[in-house]
Parts: sequence; structure tokens; C-alpha cells
Amino acid sequence: MFSIENRNKWFAEAINDDLQIFSTLKTVYYAGKSPFQTIDVIETGSFGRCLLIDGKMQSASIDEFIYHESLVHPVMLAHPNPKTVFVGGGGEGATIREIFRHKSVEKVVMADIDEVVVKTSRDHLPTHHAGAYSDPRLELHIDDAKKILFESPVNFDVIIFDLADPTEGGPAYLLYTKNFYEQVKKKLNPGGLVITQSGPAGLLTYKEPFPSIRNTLAAVFENTFEMAVHVPSFNDMYSYVIATDSKEDPRTWTTEQVDEKLKQRLGEDAFGKLQFYDGISHRGIVNIPKYLREAIKEEKRIYTEENPVYFH
Amino acid sequence: MFSIENRNKWFAEAINDDLQIFSTLKTVYYAGKSPFQTIDVIETGSFGRCLLIDGKMQSASIDEFIYHESLVHPVMLAHPNPKTVFVGGGGEGATIREIFRHKSVEKVVMADIDEVVVKTSRDHLPTHHAGAYSDPRLELHIDDAKKILFESPVNFDVIIFDLADPTEGGPAYLLYTKNFYEQVKKKLNPGGLVITQSGPAGLLTYKEPFPSIRNTLAAVFENTFEMAVHVPSFNDMYSYVIATDSKEDPRTWTTEQVDEKLKQRLGEDAFGKLQFYDGISHRGIVNIPKYLREAIKEEKRIYTEENPVYFH
Amino acid sequence: MFSIENRNKWFAEAINDDLQIFSTLKTVYYAGKSPFQTIDVIETGSFGRCLLIDGKMQSASIDEFIYHESLVHPVMLAHPNPKTVFVGGGGEGATIREIFRHKSVEKVVMADIDEVVVKTSRDHLPTHHAGAYSDPRLELHIDDAKKILFESPVNFDVIIFDLADPTEGGPAYLLYTKNFYEQVKKKLNPGGLVITQSGPAGLLTYKEPFPSIRNTLAAVFENTFEMAVHVPSFNDMYSYVIATDSKEDPRTWTTEQVDEKLKQRLGEDAFGKLQFYDGISHRGIVNIPKYLREAIKEEKRIYTEENPVYFH
Amino acid sequence: MFSIENRNKWFAEAINDDLQIFSTLKTVYYAGKSPFQTIDVIETGSFGRCLLIDGKMQSASIDEFIYHESLVHPVMLAHPNPKTVFVGGGGEGATIREIFRHKSVEKVVMADIDEVVVKTSRDHLPTHHAGAYSDPRLELHIDDAKKILFESPVNFDVIIFDLADPTEGGPAYLLYTKNFYEQVKKKLNPGGLVITQSGPAGLLTYKEPFPSIRNTLAAVFENTFEMAVHVPSFNDMYSYVIATDSKEDPRTWTTEQVDEKLKQRLGEDAFGKLQFYDGISHRGIVNIPKYLREAIKEEKRIYTEENPVYFH
Repeated sequence: MFSIENRNKWFAEAINDDLQIFSTLKTVYYAGKSPFQTIDVIETGSFGRCLLIDGKMQSASIDEFIYHESLVHPVMLAHPNPKTVFVGGGGEGATIREIFRHKSVEKVVMADIDEVVVKTSRDHLPTHHAGAYSDPRLELHIDDAKKILFESPVNFDVIIFDLADPTEGGPAYLLYTKNFYEQVKKKLNPGGLVITQSGPAGLLTYKEPFPSIRNTLAAVFENTFEMAVHVPSFNDMYSYVIATDSKEDPRTWTTEQVDEKLKQRLGEDAFGKLQFYDGISHRGIVNIPKYLREAIKEEKRIYTEENPVYFH
Repeated sequence: MFSIENRNKWFAEAINDDLQIFSTLKTVYYAGKSPFQTIDVIETGSFGRCLLIDGKMQSASIDEFIYHESLVHPVMLAHPNPKTVFVGGGGEGATIREIFRHKSVEKVVMADIDEVVVKTSRDHLPTHHAGAYSDPRLELHIDDAKKILFESPVNFDVIIFDLADPTEGGPAYLLYTKNFYEQVKKKLNPGGLVITQSGPAGLLTYKEPFPSIRNTLAAVFENTFEMAVHVPSFNDMYSYVIATDSKEDPRTWTTEQVDEKLKQRLGEDAFGKLQFYDGISHRGIVNIPKYLREAIKEEKRIYTEENPVYFH
Repeated sequence: MFSIENRNKWFAEAINDDLQIFSTLKTVYYAGKSPFQTIDVIETGSFGRCLLIDGKMQSASIDEFIYHESLVHPVMLAHPNPKTVFVGGGGEGATIREIFRHKSVEKVVMADIDEVVVKTSRDHLPTHHAGAYSDPRLELHIDDAKKILFESPVNFDVIIFDLADPTEGGPAYLLYTKNFYEQVKKKLNPGGLVITQSGPAGLLTYKEPFPSIRNTLAAVFENTFEMAVHVPSFNDMYSYVIATDSKEDPRTWTTEQVDEKLKQRLGEDAFGKLQFYDGISHRGIVNIPKYLREAIKEEKRIYTEENPVYFH
Repeated sequence: MFSIENRNKWFAEAINDDLQIFSTLKTVYYAGKSPFQTIDVIETGSFGRCLLIDGKMQSASIDEFIYHESLVHPVMLAHPNPKTVFVGGGGEGATIREIFRHKSVEKVVMADIDEVVVKTSRDHLPTHHAGAYSDPRLELHIDDAKKILFESPVNFDVIIFDLADPTEGGPAYLLYTKNFYEQVKKKLNPGGLVITQSGPAGLLTYKEPFPSIRNTLAAVFENTFEMAVHVPSFNDMYSYVIATDSKEDPRTWTTEQVDEKLKQRLGEDAFGKLQFYDGISHRGIVNIPKYLREAIKEEKRIYTEENPVYFH
């Protein structure tokens, strides 16, 4: 039975109209609202402690390292010496946790618009941020990422967008447009790179927003590099796009090169503590499935303020 | 979708192997264990605040009045002047809440074996007990109901069993046997009555334990009277059996007689505050469906310590 | 687990936004569409063979007798000698099956608008109609019940509406209005009676459409009599309203009177074959819960074509 | 709601005790039993037409190409000129469909123990086998794969096991032991390779049976090569192990080498028709996540007849 023993409380998530995922729900640590969204922190039997935004899984303690290591380390390695990093979103604190592993980093400016997400994560997601909020290199703004980035007196080596998907009318939509990326580019130091999470990348789910995000970035930057990785708590593959005018191509790195560079950047100890990312995993995630590559080839849409590509 | 809006957390209960009920889960007020069972207090969208024992619905704030008014008032009215009442179980406090409405009542002895149920109910189910735990007429024991009843220095006019079903190996089984009822009978004052909840009474669920409980009581007492009522949070009809050597037959009362007697016993005000029970409802619940009556006729089983009738 | 053994296919029904019922699904006998609605016949583990209209449970082989015996026999007994009966809806054939048990009946005119429902029921619901479609007393029309009734050259002793609920924009709405009932009244013989199913009658569900239907009938007929009965496959209580200008009050019948009359009308054998309805069950269903009676008292709405009372 | 519109029938699958997947169920094409297992063919809204064995997803028309192309093409490319292939299991016919794309193949001997799976697949899974059962190069046995393989008068260039997982007491367990693989090895031509599906490979599910299968193969063959790929209808990553005494290492192939060899082996046209596998996808699946590699390092268990490693 569904309700045997202690399995009578469930968290349900719709992947699409025809697919629902049920995870056993053990505890509700927090259930509240901000001016922007509903926020829950729950304990599940399958995924551990989870942050939900508007009822959807954002990250789970059991596997968030897959998502966050993939978001941070490839783009950081693609820069020769990243000292300044901007993070848009990322309220759980796990993105900055990974960034701070890089010894070269001197300053991280982070802007998350939702104070409740940040506070709730600090209070209830200890393994997500793991103390990163206390790192003296962090400059935290509870504000619009666009405003903070564009008004920043300094430029950045790496800019990381860890934002909600660009849904119609959603708060993050304006942070995915061509015009936005053109402005972002001006905030990069020479040789700088941008990465954004780009939504689901499974065979049933890749069509939006991944190809549109990638196409929009490709209209602004000389090169884009795509990655896809399986995240169990998303019940799906997930995608990222790196965009840059630099010539460095992460797809050409050998496994040895990645491992060597990682050890230099993080130190031998911190390298060993990564749970997902290393040279072989790197090659696994940069070699994306054929259907994603064909979607990239065929995509014509570009996100603009005037002609939004609706993503439901 | 199941997980639209705030409907992404669910409480699931198996009615049987082929039937599951899902209610939206809003909050977990309490989730713990006693030496006897697991105990939850949750808020659901459909049934309000609910007490769960071993994951199963015990009573819900939205409709517990149907169950408790039916458990208490008919048997109390069947006694000419009930002054002393014994309650076995009933930890939520709603059974004593209804008993104390009767002005004739001078003393209620209640024994619930599970301190955690009683404490959790007092803390988290305010509308269930509604202050009844503070009534000076209450003598509360956290102990085995059998022991407290049999060792009581006084006898009772009415004895009410609000216990878990007699499942194999369950803690309450010994409070449903022929031998137990023979002892119970000795603790009744002349003209006294016993009532016990008797499990589900729907067409799909009535076969156990209702007919066995009724048959066991009929082997000990001269008369039994059965009742059945629909309780939405049980997703089913629920049954009761009154057993007595008294000749008073509640099935013969007219609606006017019930209403008149209720007003006398409770006072006009308290009568008006009952949400379910009155003369017409009385006639509705004592006239039980044909399949229940036929089950009674055909039943041969009697609960004994030696030959338990297993109820799964 | 939900998906143990052969329990990996499920039929889900929403009782309301906060309550979902899951029944094991064994077989899909039929899944199709008519010009009016979608129609399924499925086998479930809990309720046997079920007819679904627009995905909602209409009747189940395991308990449809409760619904149909309650719909037919009380209103038939309330007429002194019912010879002519009109049925609106009732495509499963179980309503006419019960009507034909009455030896006095000479002619039944039935109009169901949906040929697919009738054909599917004849093909796949053998225990529902049990051959009733072949009774020579039946005059079956696949047509609008309103049209067939109003154009009928003869009047009727009893008119039975076994229709879909009066949902906004639904096909049946016009068969629940005051104006409609005024016309219906003209098609009754002197002393004739009307009955209609009136939607759910549980504590959580009774507010629509039951009180509005009852109030609308009460605006047209001198007397109304309400009934409520638990139907497991509806996961709820269900209601009926009898309306008539006759003085005969079914609530005053003793159990003996009902049983005696039933035996006369059906014959001793057929009486014994009823699975739910008899004198005691009669008294159980006509004595409706207090909350239903209070809803009746407070109701002011009347269904009209111009000001529909929307029922969602 | 779960049960909106046509979404009232669902297929449920337990990934583990804490995780359930619900897919909309459109049609049941077949539901039956063989002497070995229950077999269903259903249409789902999310995954298309699906074969279920004992209620568990085996393959789905929407994404079986990911699973079957990964099972067949890497191992075939690792052989310089595969002419003879043995298939154990594979009743859907999709494995042989992929094998027959290789122009070098002269003979495929396939043994599936369950005639009902084969017949049901031929009747109801047309896109799975796509006519492969009619290829004159096929020699099909409905029999124990072990018996057919060991009694085969000829040896094979490639042996492919597309079997059920080695669950305790399950029919396939004996096809995963060290002793079995030692016998298998004797049926390989020089330079020959074996591949077996090796169960789930997601972060939550990889621990059994993948590392044990790999370790058992590594005890018998000089080299093993592991692969992992995301299959949406399994709601997970899935794994394979290639085992061989050959020195050819598929992990060293460049994307260009894979594409070039594939075009030679299949022809330009057939190469273009592959939906998942090509040089880049190859590199994606042979570079497996860190946690899988660490599981391999730490694994000590070996499947033997005497000391089975139980997989639940």
C-alpha cells in the first residue's frame, strides 16, 4: 500500500501533465510565502531535505552536489584565473559554497531577490550552504540581480546565473533575454565567461527552455558550450549553457587535464571532497545526447522583451 | 495536476488493498511515537486537523462530532439518569466533552493507556476536547482500561469503549472478548449499558469486526442495539453496538421523544449546539442497512482469548 | 507500495480539490466518446465494473443496487398503484430494472439522450440492466428527456429523473429548473410523484446542488421528501428528493408497513431479492442528518433558466 | 487535479519504498500471465506504448531507442567484424532490430524463455521489433538462454544479455554468476565480447546490482568497460558492462572514430537513422559518474550459485 507504515505522507510533483512523482514526506520544516513565491523546506524519504519554490523541487540535500558542482566548476576551470565572480540567484548557498572552494577567488557578489529564500536556506539547509554565507569574500545583496550586476563598480571574471526558469510572467524572465545578455557581456572582464542553468534536458522535457536559452546566448557571445547531467531529485537530466568570447573549449579537455587543473585550483584535499565532478564526469556531461544537439541546430527562437518565447 | 498550487503535499490512507484516499496535507503539527503506536497530528485540506494512530485516521476536526455525538448521546439517553460513566480509550477528549454535556453526570472515570495520545490531543486538538480535560467531574487514568475498570471501587451507569479495533495482536484485542464483557457487566449498576465503537459499516467493509463484536456482546447481554453513521474522514460508514440487560429499546423512540429527552438532559442551549444528533438523526442511525442486519443474523463467531477472530 | 503485485494501475477520482480517491484498475472494457461526454467502462478492484461519464463514477456493479433501489422503490410505494412511469436518463438500465419489479407497472417510457451510454451499458454492464432493456413494457427513446416527456400523449403516475448533476453549461441543467418542473407537473396523473437524484449529501459535499434542487421542487410542488444513503463507490452519501402534491408522507411509514407493501407490489420472491431496501432501510434513509435539514431551511436559491445557480 | 479530463487512469511504479512514479494510462492492450511472470502492454501519456513485466517498466516506445542503441552499438563497434551474435532475452525484438543494422552480421541466435513475452511483443509492440523477427539471419529459440548458448554448435563474436535483473530467486539469477560467465567465455570466438545490462545507475539506485555484476565479470574477463545512460521511462540512469579479453578500449575512441566506424558498419543511411547513439553520445555514456567508479573500486562481492548476492 501507498500508506504502509510511515509512508502515509507524500510530496507530489508534476513533471508534466502525464507524469507525477510521489516522494515520502517525513517533516515540514518550513512552509511560507515571500512577496515572490511560496517556499517550503521539507524532509523526504528519497531525497533528504528539499527546498521547494512554488511547490517545485529546487534542490535536495541528497544530490544537490551534482547540480551545483556542474554549475560551478567547469566554468571556473574555463577561466585562467577567476578572482571575481557574480552570482544571480542561488539563495540556497550551495553555489557560493562551490565557488569558495577555488583558491583564486577574491570576491563573490551575489544577488538574490528573495530574502525569505536566503533566510530559510540559512536556517534550514545547513549542508547546502555549509557556512558559505559567512565567507568574508561574499558580498550579499537581497535585490534584483540585474540591478546589482549592472550597477556594480567592478566587472567579473565569471558570472553564474542560478535562476528560476524563464516562465511567462515569471520573475526571472527578464534575466534570459538577448538584451539582458548584451548588458551582461559588458560586465565581464576580458576572457570572462557566463553560465546559466538552462532547464530540463531529458528526452521528454528538453524542448523548453534549453534550446531557446542557448540560442539567445549564441546570438550575443562567440561560443557556447552545453552540458547535461542527471539529477535524481529533478527526476530528469538538467542542462547548462556556458557562453563566452574566449576561445577555450571545455569539450577538448582530457580527463587528466581536468583533474590536474582542479587539484591546482582547489588543493588536493578539496579536490578529493568533490562528490560528482572530476575529469571523467566532466567528459560525461559535456558530451550531450544527440537529441539535444539536434534541438540546438534547429532552434530559431531568441528571447526578447518584446517577443517572449513562452515556456509553460 | 495533483501538485497544483499548494496541493503538493498529501496524506494517503489505505481503506483496503484496492482503495486509497489522498487528502491534501497542509501542516504536520506533531509526529511522534509512544511505546504503543505512532501518533501524528496533521492539518488536511479536506478534514481539518486530524489525529492519526499508526498512520490511520482516528478523528478529524471537521466531522468528529458525528462520531462522538453518536457514540455518547444514544446510550446516555437509554439510561434513565446516568450519574457515573466509565470511558475506555477516548484520548482525544471528545468523548468526555460530549458526556459532560449531560447535567446528570457526576463522575467520569476515563482510562487511556497512551499518555502521548492524551498529551498530544490536549496540546494540538483544542476543538476536540474543548476544555473537557479540566472538568472537575473527570478522573483520568493513564493506564490499562481493563485494570482501572475492574479495580474501580464504584460501578457505573454507562460504560463507553472508544478503543482501537480488535486487530490480531493489537493492544485492544483483549477489550473485545466474551470473558472481558462478562467482567464488564459486573461493573455496571442495575439498568446500566455498555457501548463500543464497532469498526467500519460500509458495504465493502462491514464484515469485520462489526458482526463479531456484536455477536460477542449478544452472548453476554440480553439486548444489543446497533447503529451506523457516515463519517466522511473515515471515508465510510461507522458502527456502534449498545449492549444491556435493560429492556429500553432506542429503536422505538419517536423523534419527538428523543428531542424532548435531549433538551431535558442537556438543557435547551446545549441541545441546540449539537451539530449532528437529534431525534431525526437518531432514527437515521438506528435503522441500519439490510446487509448489516443480515450479517448479524449469520454471524457465529465470538471473540475469546483462546480463539481470537483475527481481524486484519 | 502502491504498485505491488497487480496493483499498478489505478483509477483516480477527485471528490473535491482536497480529496482524491484511487481504486485499483483491472481492465478497460470500453473507452470512448459520444457527442455529449466521454464514456468508460472499467473493472476496479474495489467497486467491480464501473461506468464513468467524463471520468466520474456513475455506477458500480458492487453497490449500484443501493443507489437504484433507493431511487425507485420509495417513490413507487408512495403511489397507490403506479402503472405508467417516465424515466429521464438512466442509461445503465438499472433504474428500469428496479421499476419492472413492480407488478403494477404497465408502461415505462424512458428517454436518454446519449445513445453511446445506452449501447455501452447494454454491451458491458450486464448486471446493471439484467435484461430490463428487453422488457416489452419499455418504450425507449434516444432523445432529449424534456422533449419526449412534454410531447408524450399520455401522463404518468411516477416520473424518475436519473440525470447528471445540474452543472453550469452541462447538458442536464435545463432539467432542474423551476420552469421545467412546472411543465413536468402537468405530465403527472392526479396523485403522481416525481423523484430526482440530487447530488452528494455528505457533510463535506451537501451544499450543492442538493438544497437548490430541493428548494426549486418545493416552489412547484406541495410536498417534498428527502432521502440520503451511503454509496461506497461515490465515496459519499447521496441524496434524492421526492416531490408531489399528494399528501402521502413516506416518513410516517412504519417498517412493517413498508415491508408489507413491498411484498404486495413485488411478490414475496422479488421482495427477498432486494439487496438494500426494506422497511428498516427505508426509515434509515428518510431520516436525514441534521446538517441536511438545516441546509433545506436556509436555502433561498431556485434554479431558473435566467439565473442559474452555478454548481462546480 | 489528478483526475482532470482524461487523466483519471494511472500506471504507478515504485522506484523504491520512498518514490513512486505515476504516468497517465490511456489503454490496456494486453494484460496476461506466462508461467514465468505477468505481462502487460499499455499505452501511457508520457512514455507511449510500454511493456511491463511483473508490473515493472521494461521498455517504452518513446525512449527504448536510448536503451537498445546503447546496449548494441558500442559492443558491436568494439569487435572488428562481428558476424555471429548471441542474444539472451530481448523478447521485445528491439535488441535484434539494432543488431541487424550491422551489415557484417550473418547470424543471430536469440533465446528468450518466455513465449508470451515474444508473442505479445510481436503483436503489440510493432515499433520495438520493426520487423526484425522476420529477418532471415535470426534463429529464435523459446528456451533457456543458458541451455541454448552452451549447446550451440557454433561460437559467437558478440554475446548480448538483455535479461531481467538478478533478483533473489528470480529466473535470471543464474545468468549472472561467475560460473555462468566462465562458461560464456568459452562460447566466444577469439576477440569476442560480452555485454549485459546491469541495472539502474542513478545516485539513489546504483548500489545493486551494478557493482556486483561488474565485479563478477571482472573476475572472469581481462577487461570491463562500463556505460550509463538516462532513460526517462525508467526514471533513472541505466548501466551496462562490456567484458572481454580483447585489448580494445571503447573509452579511448574519439567522436570522429565512432562516427566513421558506425557509418562503415551500418551504411550512411542507417547511421543517420540512429536516434541516440553517435560519437558524442558514445563519449557521454562511457564517461560514467564518479560515484559509479568509486562503487566499482570498493566492490568485493561476486555472484556465485552458492553465495548469491541478494538484490531486492
